[in-house]
Order: sequence, then structure tokens, then C-alpha cells
Amino acid sequence: MNKPTLPLEPVESFDYVIFGATGDLTMRKLLPALYRRFAEGQVPGDSRIVGTARSPLDDESYRERVRAALREYIGADEIADTTLNRFLGMVHYVSLNGADASGNWPALASLLDSGAGRTKVRVFYLATAPDLYGDIARNVAEKGLRSETSRIVLEKPIGTDLETARKVNDGVGRYFPEGSIYRIDHYLGKEAVQNIIALRFANPMLERMWDSESIEYVQITAAETVGLEGRGGYYDGSGALRDMIQNHLLQVLTVVAMERPSSLDADALRDEKVRVLKALKPLDPRNLRANVARGQYVQGRAGGKPVPAYREELPGEAPSRTETFVALKAEIDNPRWRGVPFYLRSGKRMPEKVTEVVVQFRAGEPGLFGEARPGSRLVIRVQPDESVTLPLFVKHPGHGFGLEEVDALSRPAGPERARYRDSYEGLLLDAVKGSPALFVRKDETEAAWQWVTPILENWRESHEAPDAYEAGTWGPDSARELLRRSGHHWVEDAAA
Amino acid sequence: MNKPTLPLEPVESFDYVIFGATGDLTMRKLLPALYRRFAEGQVPGDSRIVGTARSPLDDESYRERVRAALREYIGADEIADTTLNRFLGMVHYVSLNGADASGNWPALASLLDSGAGRTKVRVFYLATAPDLYGDIARNVAEKGLRSETSRIVLEKPIGTDLETARKVNDGVGRYFPEGSIYRIDHYLGKEAVQNIIALRFANPMLERMWDSESIEYVQITAAETVGLEGRGGYYDGSGALRDMIQNHLLQVLTVVAMERPSSLDADALRDEKVRVLKALKPLDPRNLRANVARGQYVQGRAGGKPVPAYREELPGEAPSRTETFVALKAEIDNPRWRGVPFYLRSGKRMPEKVTEVVVQFRAGEPGLFGEARPGSRLVIRVQPDESVTLPLFVKHPGHGFGLEEVDALSRPAGPERARYRDSYEGLLLDAVKGSPALFVRKDETEAAWQWVTPILENWRESHEAPDAYEAGTWGPDSARELLRRSGHHWVEDAAA
Repeated sequence: MNKPTLPLEPVESFDYVIFGATGDLTMRKLLPALYRRFAEGQVPGDSRIVGTARSPLDDESYRERVRAALREYIGADEIADTTLNRFLGMVHYVSLNGADASGNWPALASLLDSGAGRTKVRVFYLATAPDLYGDIARNVAEKGLRSETSRIVLEKPIGTDLETARKVNDGVGRYFPEGSIYRIDHYLGKEAVQNIIALRFANPMLERMWDSESIEYVQITAAETVGLEGRGGYYDGSGALRDMIQNHLLQVLTVVAMERPSSLDADALRDEKVRVLKALKPLDPRNLRANVARGQYVQGRAGGKPVPAYREELPGEAPSRTETFVALKAEIDNPRWRGVPFYLRSGKRMPEKVTEVVVQFRAGEPGLFGEARPGSRLVIRVQPDESVTLPLFVKHPGHGFGLEEVDALSRPAGPERARYRDSYEGLLLDAVKGSPALFVRKDETEAAWQWVTPILENWRESHEAPDAYEAGTWGPDSARELLRRSGHHWVEDAAA
Repeated sequence: MNKPTLPLEPVESFDYVIFGATGDLTMRKLLPALYRRFAEGQVPGDSRIVGTARSPLDDESYRERVRAALREYIGADEIADTTLNRFLGMVHYVSLNGADASGNWPALASLLDSGAGRTKVRVFYLATAPDLYGDIARNVAEKGLRSETSRIVLEKPIGTDLETARKVNDGVGRYFPEGSIYRIDHYLGKEAVQNIIALRFANPMLERMWDSESIEYVQITAAETVGLEGRGGYYDGSGALRDMIQNHLLQVLTVVAMERPSSLDADALRDEKVRVLKALKPLDPRNLRANVARGQYVQGRAGGKPVPAYREELPGEAPSRTETFVALKAEIDNPRWRGVPFYLRSGKRMPEKVTEVVVQFRAGEPGLFGEARPGSRLVIRVQPDESVTLPLFVKHPGHGFGLEEVDALSRPAGPERARYRDSYEGLLLDAVKGSPALFVRKDETEAAWQWVTPILENWRESHEAPDAYEAGTWGPDSARELLRRSGHHWVEDAAA
């Protein structure tokens, strides 16, 4: 029986200061998320959203941009004009280069200090390029912008490898204590991902099965159908491993693999997550191909139409060794998971847009019902819809003992169920509330870089190109080979 | 993905000889079941159904009775006249008292031997009072009615206690080898009951949980809303323990509790079932009340109307100590089940008509999600609809870690799924096919009587009356007390 929806409590009054306020992330994700929370009554009326960027705008002109963005990204039919106007009344703008100490910081400071300013929670959201984070943090500190309760939220990517990640973390950490630093990975804000914790630890039936005795392998896939979409400049310097694996997929892996935390407190939870990351078996850089498949799409089809190769989408069609696809076989070296491959993969121009976790249980004893059958498979879908599916075998109706598979736990999270439309919504308020449980701690992000960086170094030194795959397919053959060597197959492939 | 329905194969040609051919069971259950199998093409055209009873009918007049019965119990809209007429063409009648050696056995013998008679499978179905079984079996043997392949199907009740059960079995066993004796318990013909075997042994996830470590208790309930319904003469000499527990509920218990059989062969399966029955801890006759609650309904309500007490429904309203309700706490003394109560109960004039198995799993470790929560509960419903439900805990949508229970494995077996409308259908053909797996073996039925008989003896000697309960309630307080003493509660009661 479903419990009635809990009433939403408003958070305490806050000032959100967004650096990079005119950028895509702010317009497409942050402001719509804040608007929705406001529309549901969770944002007290004396809160403010202060955008800063270099563009010479003022409150008025910035508000018009925000109005247009909300109408585009939320949809005009979901927005009541009165609510919108009240929201925009909370929005301010200060033209400022956050990395530049000589900017108009006094204007920002006096705005923030006005009203009940110093007593409110202040959240500084850094939606800029990460190499500016240290400078922004320094300026925020040295220009007296920190209040009694200040937090700084950092968007990914935090660095491009272990060394630069440490530099960014240290740069910010010089001015903000770790407890005030909120590294956002919006996958942790997704219901389906948080639900893994509920499923695993609130159901003894599943908890008892969550180990190498019962699980054969885990697959975590984040697939997109899109290609570059104009992000060429950024993406070509990043690639799939940095863009998706180091953060999102490894975060999902920690939630799937962690030990039972002593409580749901932020540090208890993150302690267990970091333990998983530190237990990841380092990949052998001399034999990466045994565990890693890397691809770049060539021309193919998407959405029923022909699409060009990755290289043709780059500015100037320059040759590039950036991977648009990567598949890895990760292993966790602890008693619970020893011998269970965790297959991670992410790619652009895949046949479907899907992010899901597949937990393949071992087959049972054969013989009683005739042919050997694979074990059941728990599928936790994160995108596009959020659902959990667990097939079980039941008797085929009618005479005899034929079996059929049925969807046991088919739980789509339809709109009437989901309280948040977007994972940013809860996370943005968590920063106000001072709840860092769903944010990434320093040691987590560095442990993830620790595991991933040798791969990047190997690729840089090898001068090999990624394997080609046609746009609209599930990646290169090397990705299928990666699993076949262990007698496994990706979930979309017919059983071997 | 559901497999397409398997095509139905016809069985080999047969002659079904029904003793008690004019009785309620034959008209209401056996003939409709045979008709349906015939309508679906499973009955070869040279098969015959030969009814015998004492009434001086002939083929013609008997066929008219059958026609009327089929129209009543199947429904005129489901019966095509051409099919009906073809079916009736297979129906014959011989007026005969099966227990009387001086009856018209030659007529029956020559009818059966006509045509391909001796080469067909002959099934003798005894739908008479059980004290006639021995005589009928003798007459069938001594009058030369057995063919090469003959089987004898016995309806419950087989005896009224261990001693009489042995007598009936021995009486029939003198003329038919055990391998030819098919004791019918129609609960074994139910999809939902057979499905327990599939669920338990085709799903490692459930198989792993199916023991005292994970299961706290099991409840098996067979509740009816009706009262005597004119069966007074028979029922008052029987009572709920004999009528439902000794056979149906103990059969369900064996399927729930048995070890994994070495195969689905009849004897492999029944070997395991009998092992369970023999492992039932004998109840202490000096302290039965610790494990048994016994009730008889007094006036109350059913179907929204007042209904009289059981005693008022008896012919002559004689006083009676017959129990119309019984609840027992059974324990199975083996490593798998030690410490797990199996609560069995059955009764008339309950608030609902329902037959179901409730497997209550132990609660998990508390603490992570706040309040202590009971474990999950697998519910296998056998009547009125057949379904399997397994709730799991998932995260309540929206922020925070509230949990809600959702129905995981909710599998109703709707009409489009069920191949058989009635459990007799498959069973009647199994007797033709020579598949005794879903019938009760001699040692099973005697082991069940072995466990139940001391209870009957205690009741007979004690002269105590059963506890009163109002018609329309779930039985006497003693039934609730029975569970409360172990800290448990019946599934319809709010958690203690």
C-alpha cells in the first residue's frame, strides 16, 4: 500500500550565487530546478538567486533571459505567470568574472549582505570551467563573501586526471573546509539510483543475494543516441572515460557494490562508497586491452537518418583519438565481490538512449525443469524512465511443467509518482539544508581518478586510435569480445 | 516474455467408468471437466464415459441429465450444440450398484469390451461413499473388468481416521497395485499450487530464502463463507479437520515444505512430500490446546444477511460437537524448518472465501531506515483467483529515504492465461496418461492421517465443545491466541 505523499517542507532562507549564470547548465538545469522547488513552496520568499557572469547584464535583462529559459525548458503550460513573476523577483545579477580579483565584488558583497543576508545560508554554485574553481573560491573567501553558513558546489569535471583533480580540490580546499564542499554528480540525485540503496538494504531477500555467491556479473550502461551536438570543443578534450565513467558510472557502481552503511548519514554512506573505489583492482597498464575496449563512431544512422562520423563533426574535421565509447571490465577485490565482473560502458551514437544497471544472478541448479536456464536478471533503469524489473520463473499455465519468465518487480516511476522531475532539484536543496550525503567527497573523487588515470596515460602514450564503430550500433566488436572472453554478453545481445 | 501456449496433445483413447454417476461431484465437476477437455480436442473420438449408479436410467435418459448438468455448470453460452452432441454420443450408462456383486456387471463388461475396448486405457472413478471402495474394487477385479491398462481413482475422504484409511486402502490394494491407484486431491490440480514448485525450484533467489533462516512462519488458510448448504448429513460426521486439513491443507504444506526432488517424476516428487509428512512433529495429546483451536459457528452474518448457527442448520437441530473451524500450529522437525511454525486453518462462515499460502519472511536488520519494519510476505493465492504477490520495499519518491511497500510479483492468472478452468481437468487426463505425480500416494495419505488422528481421538474423548465464533468472523479467539503466544498474528489482523 503506497504511503500518502509526504508534505514538502520549505528549506531555510538562502542565497544561491551562481557563477557561470549565463551558461547552458544554469539555464537548462539549475534555474528550472530551482523554479520547480519554488513553485512547490519549498523556497522561502526572502531567498535570492544571484547570477554572476562576465556578460554586462543587469537584473532586468538577466531576468528576461531566465524567463525565456524557463519557458523553454519547463514548458509554458507548466508555468503560471504569477508564480514566474514572483520567482523572477528573487533573481538578481551581478556582472562579474569570478576568477578575477579585480571584478565588481563589492557589488556582489553588498547585495548578499543586504536584508537578512549574513544569517542566510549562502550556496556558491560553480558552473564554470573547472580550472577557475580555485580562483573563484579564493575570491569568494578573500572578498568577504562567506557568511556564517556557506557552501560551495562544484560541477564536474573536477580536473582531467588525478593530478589536476587534486589541484582543483586543493585550490578550493584552501578556502573552504571539506565539509562545505559539495561536488555534484547528478546521478546521485536520481530516484532510481537512490532506490538501489532501498532495494538492497530494506529487503532481506535481495540483501541476502547481493554477493558473488549469487551474482554472476553486473553491467552498468550509459548510452546516448546523440553525437557531439556542438560540444565539440569541450568533449574532444575529454572523451567518454572522463565524461561519464570517472564520475557517473563509478558513482553508480559504488552504490551497487557498497557494504551496508552504519547509517544513512553523509559520512557513513560515503565511507562505504570510497571503500569500494579503493578496492577496485587496478588495471594492468601493460595489458589494458584485456579489460578495456575503446571506440569512436564513424558514419552510420541515428533517428532513422544518416549521420556523419565523429571526426566530421569536429571543428575543422581534425583527426582525433578521443574515444566516444568505452567499455571496461572492473573488478572489486573484496570478499563480497571477488570474481564478479562489473562491466561499465558509455558511448555516444548508440542505438538507444538508456542508462541502466543490470544485475545478472547466477543460474540455479539445472535439471529439474528440463533445459538449463540462465539466472534471473534485476534491471534498474535510470534513464529514460526510472524503473526496476525483476523477472522470476513461474509455471507456464496449463498442463505440464513448462516455465515462463514474468516481470516480477516492474516498477516504473511515472510522473504521478516522482516528486522531482530532475535530479538537480533535490540536490540543490540538499546544499541549502547542509545534507552532503548525495554529493561526492574529496576522497571519493580522487579514488575514482586514481583508478581511471592509468588508463588515460596509457592511451596518451600508445598513439593507437580507438576502434571504429558505426553510429547507431552498440560500439566496436572489441566491446563484445571483452565480455565474450568471460563467457558473458551484453544485455542486448542474444545469449551466447 | 511469455512463451506461446503449447498446443494441446490429445491423450490416448480411454474409457472412463464413473461409479456414483448421478451424484453431485460427477455432475458438477467430473463431466464438465471431461467436456472441456473434449471441446479442446484432447479426447479421441473413440473414448467413452460410462456412468454407473443405482438409478434405473439408460443411455438416453442419462445423457439428458448430463446435458442439463453441462448447461448449468459450464454455461449455455460456452457450449456449442454440435460439440455437446458429439460428447454425449460418447456417454453411456449402466444401472448398477458397484458394491453389489450381484448387479448387472455383465452388461458393463460387454460394453467396455466392445470396440477396441480391451486395448484402451480404463479408468474407474469412484465417486461414491468411501466405505464402498473396497467392494467396488473387488467387483471390478472379480467381474473381469480390468483391462491391460486399468487405473482406479479414489475421491476423498479416504477413511475417517488412520485405521479406517488403512482399511480402505488395503481393501482397494487387494485388487489394484499401488501404481494403479490414483487418490485425487484436486488442490494438487490447481495451477497456483503447482506453481509453488516452479517458484521454489526455478528461482535461485527464492530457493535460497526458503528455510528457517529467512522464513519466520507460514500460514495456510482455506476459508469459506458458506455454511452447511445441505451437506449436513455428511459434514457433521466429518468436521473441518477431516474435510480440509487432513487432505488439502496438508498437501499444500508438503509442496511448500518439501526438499528439492531429484526430478519431477511421480515417485521422486511424492517421496519428498511424504518425507515432510513424516517429519511433522506429533502434537502432544495431553496439551492439544497449545497447538489447536477448534470452533463452531453461532449465528452471525454472511453476504450481508443474518445466518443461523451451525446447530440450527443440522437436521433436527441436534446438538453437535463437530468443528466447523480448526486452526493448528504444525512444526516440521528437520534442519530446514525447525523453529518455523506452519499455521493451518480452515473454516466455514468466514468473512471471505479464500485459500492462500502466506510465507512471512523474517525482518531484516533494523536501523538503517528508521522504524523497525516487518519482513516481506509472499502470498500465493489459490482461490478465488490464482495469484502470487511479493511486496518489496522501495524508496518513497521525492526527497529523503522514506520507504513504501510495492507489490513485486503480482501475478494473477486471468482467464486468458489459465488453460484449465478447473483443477479436475488436468487431473482426469493425468489418470488416462498414467501420470500419478499430482495424486496422493498411499504412504502420504496414511502419514497425514497419522498426524491428524490423535487430534480426533482427543476430541472424541474430551467431550468438550468447540469454541463458539460468530458466522462472518475469522473464527474463535482461541485461534488468535494460538498465534499470539508466539508473537505472531493471522494475516488479516493488524500487526501486534
